[in-house]
Amino acid sequence: MKEKIDLLGAGLIGSLLAIYLKKRGLDVTIYEKRQDWRNSNKSSEGRSINMALSDRGWNALEKAGLKEKVLPYTLPMSGRRIHDEHGNTYFQPYGKENQAIYSISRNVFNELLMDEAEALGAKIYFNHKVENVNVAKREVEFCLKDGSEKRMTSDVLIGSDGSYSALRNAFQSQVRFNFYQKFISHGYKELHIPPTASGDFALDPNALHIWPRGKFMLIALPNLDKSFTCTLFLPFEGYKVSFENIYDDRDVSQIFKTYFNDAFDLMPNLLADFKNNPTSALINTECYPWTENNALLIGDAAHAMVPFYGQGMNCGFEDCFILDKLIEKYGTSSWDLVFEKFQKKRKRDTDAICQLAMDNFKEMSDNIADPKFLIRKKIEAKLHELYPKEWQPLYSMITFSNMRYSEAYAIGKLQEKVMDEVMKDPDVPKNWNDLDYAAIVEKVETSGEV
Amino acid sequence: MKEKIDLLGAGLIGSLLAIYLKKRGLDVTIYEKRQDWRNSNKSSEGRSINMALSDRGWNALEKAGLKEKVLPYTLPMSGRRIHDEHGNTYFQPYGKENQAIYSISRNVFNELLMDEAEALGAKIYFNHKVENVNVAKREVEFCLKDGSEKRMTSDVLIGSDGSYSALRNAFQSQVRFNFYQKFISHGYKELHIPPTASGDFALDPNALHIWPRGKFMLIALPNLDKSFTCTLFLPFEGYKVSFENIYDDRDVSQIFKTYFNDAFDLMPNLLADFKNNPTSALINTECYPWTENNALLIGDAAHAMVPFYGQGMNCGFEDCFILDKLIEKYGTSSWDLVFEKFQKKRKRDTDAICQLAMDNFKEMSDNIADPKFLIRKKIEAKLHELYPKEWQPLYSMITFSNMRYSEAYAIGKLQEKVMDEVMKDPDVPKNWNDLDYAAIVEKVETSGEV
Repeated sequence: MKEKIDLLGAGLIGSLLAIYLKKRGLDVTIYEKRQDWRNSNKSSEGRSINMALSDRGWNALEKAGLKEKVLPYTLPMSGRRIHDEHGNTYFQPYGKENQAIYSISRNVFNELLMDEAEALGAKIYFNHKVENVNVAKREVEFCLKDGSEKRMTSDVLIGSDGSYSALRNAFQSQVRFNFYQKFISHGYKELHIPPTASGDFALDPNALHIWPRGKFMLIALPNLDKSFTCTLFLPFEGYKVSFENIYDDRDVSQIFKTYFNDAFDLMPNLLADFKNNPTSALINTECYPWTENNALLIGDAAHAMVPFYGQGMNCGFEDCFILDKLIEKYGTSSWDLVFEKFQKKRKRDTDAICQLAMDNFKEMSDNIADPKFLIRKKIEAKLHELYPKEWQPLYSMITFSNMRYSEAYAIGKLQEKVMDEVMKDPDVPKNWNDLDYAAIVEKVETSGEV
Repeated sequence: MKEKIDLLGAGLIGSLLAIYLKKRGLDVTIYEKRQDWRNSNKSSEGRSINMALSDRGWNALEKAGLKEKVLPYTLPMSGRRIHDEHGNTYFQPYGKENQAIYSISRNVFNELLMDEAEALGAKIYFNHKVENVNVAKREVEFCLKDGSEKRMTSDVLIGSDGSYSALRNAFQSQVRFNFYQKFISHGYKELHIPPTASGDFALDPNALHIWPRGKFMLIALPNLDKSFTCTLFLPFEGYKVSFENIYDDRDVSQIFKTYFNDAFDLMPNLLADFKNNPTSALINTECYPWTENNALLIGDAAHAMVPFYGQGMNCGFEDCFILDKLIEKYGTSSWDLVFEKFQKKRKRDTDAICQLAMDNFKEMSDNIADPKFLIRKKIEAKLHELYPKEWQPLYSMITFSNMRYSEAYAIGKLQEKVMDEVMKDPDVPKNWNDLDYAAIVEKVETSGEV
């Protein structure tokens, strides 16, 4: 008899996990709240959000044999292109010459992964909204599209059901479940830059575009159809430029003309998009334990992060990769053991990336436009050039390596401390090129903190 | 027409709040999950826990005209009596000569407050378990004792329904509700020391007794019937002495004989109590906002803390006191305004006391038995003696004053920093009496951090 395993949620993480589990010969069923939107014109949630695939994500896809299939749907972005308020732009490479992060449409990607999972024999039930989970009995109650109810009892249950996970909600009424959810002060709205009249990209397609404005920012990622998906991040309230202060079309135009004038010129549907697209909140959640009674939380259900490090999906994919390695090692005779090993190993890493994602908003929206910050980045780049192994930029350790997030975090903190010291010298803007770089690297090396 | 206000939970906070609101001429109804246990032999939850009333609590009771009524049910505890492993005891006064905290039975106190609330015209419905709350409609669905359902729509709704608040659960599915719940590594079990054969207190009744043992501890508070209610705090797991390692009577006896031998001799029912009383978990919760659409969280529902500063009830009573003052100031024509003012003013204070309660476990279970800590306390006592206004001990600011918790917290942090410096001197154990006390106080005074 094959072993049966049930997943809640056929999003990116649930679908990739189903592929891994099918490849291990298990009997996999996914229950998905949404309808099947493949072969229809509608996107899953009216959202056209783009994801940025980086090394951890690729690594997990490769192990599942999907790298080559996914690649054609992606566009490499080899750096940030910063847009200042005068319309000037500056390019900041993310890493070395051949390093990039890859823009891909969430919907297209999700469809591809669902197709793969089904092709391997996973069964996906759509229109199954979880109403209630009894963790002790591993019993799930669904509400179907016609309003009828359905019950399912699971041998092994995995919640890949995202930031507002129903399984996690059920865990929360268990004794001694630690939980933390925080909404940040900013919300976001998706907008759009279509191709030019001549059918071309309106901006450089090999970059992630950022209009950093301190307390708020606009970003844009390229699509295969030569359009860009833009995301506007604004405080909900408490600032002059905030969602609460935007009442009508005039306010929208005014803000875009004042702060994003070059983008404004490329957005013919700005006013309609702004009106029709929802303003969404951004949540960070952390919890523990992730497992109870042969049930497990994974991906955003276990650790939802804000999007500012571009690691939410990559981290969830890495979850799948690590879980699969543990199944490889320990087999499937004791899921509790596998799940326990998984949470013990992984929790500190997801805590680290959640924290980095939270901290990175300031870097994206504020620091990257600050001259002193740019000098700091130049020094760090030179350190990396001179000592490629001893000094790796934090961004590279997170984005272009598979080093544990917690380790990267600890090294990053150490580098930060050393750089804070370096930057205290008022002459740095003049003499940054002639610093004693060996001594700086030495400071990180000899510190006992890592 | 009188204004109608509905409270969830007739515990200590709900009952006191009902009294305040009745005195403001409002129409008050309380819905309570439990049955009415007054005039029955059963306690509310099979628990006989004692509370420690201190100044903030008394202050709130006094404003409600209840101080004289409550006093006869209390026993003053003017300090801690520390029991070491050899059966020696040491007395540490909590404050000045006439200062004490007051032991009172939770059940007796709760009954008294419910009686008062009813006498003033508040209606209490018992056996009303909240099944669901619709925050937008302010509609509450109850499950009654006979299994039937009842719905109620509220004009103004207050959740005084404790650490596992149903109203807070409903808030949690609202957009942008921040929530944090953490269970600490320790649990507790209630035990009992009966009066002696001659009908007397088995221990000094004017103290809170503590058997501090590092990672665990036992405490005892006196009761009017000359018994003591004891609470054993142990780690759930991960240590030799922990709940997971106690399998049978022999283990219980062994631990008590080894670590609490003098108490063991006074506990004839130890083994039965240990078996019959539940092992309970300890939760800390913080959340924000506390109010939404004319509904408010108060007391533990808004901020549940661990019991190690003895402030949970006192803080909840102070909540009522402050809310009442805001009603006095702003009237009842805009509850949203009153509730908004309340949360804005109060949140930072409850955050501070939650943190202090969390930190104080170490002080109670570990530090108070450490010689170096005792010298530190002596220096602080002398600082207070020499400079009674400039140096007030943190414990006194929290327990014997009505200073804002957040202010006390900030001053306490500053004192801690200064004392850390003082204690770095290796000669302190010898020369502590001859330090430059004026200079130490000066350091706190001149620091810019408060």
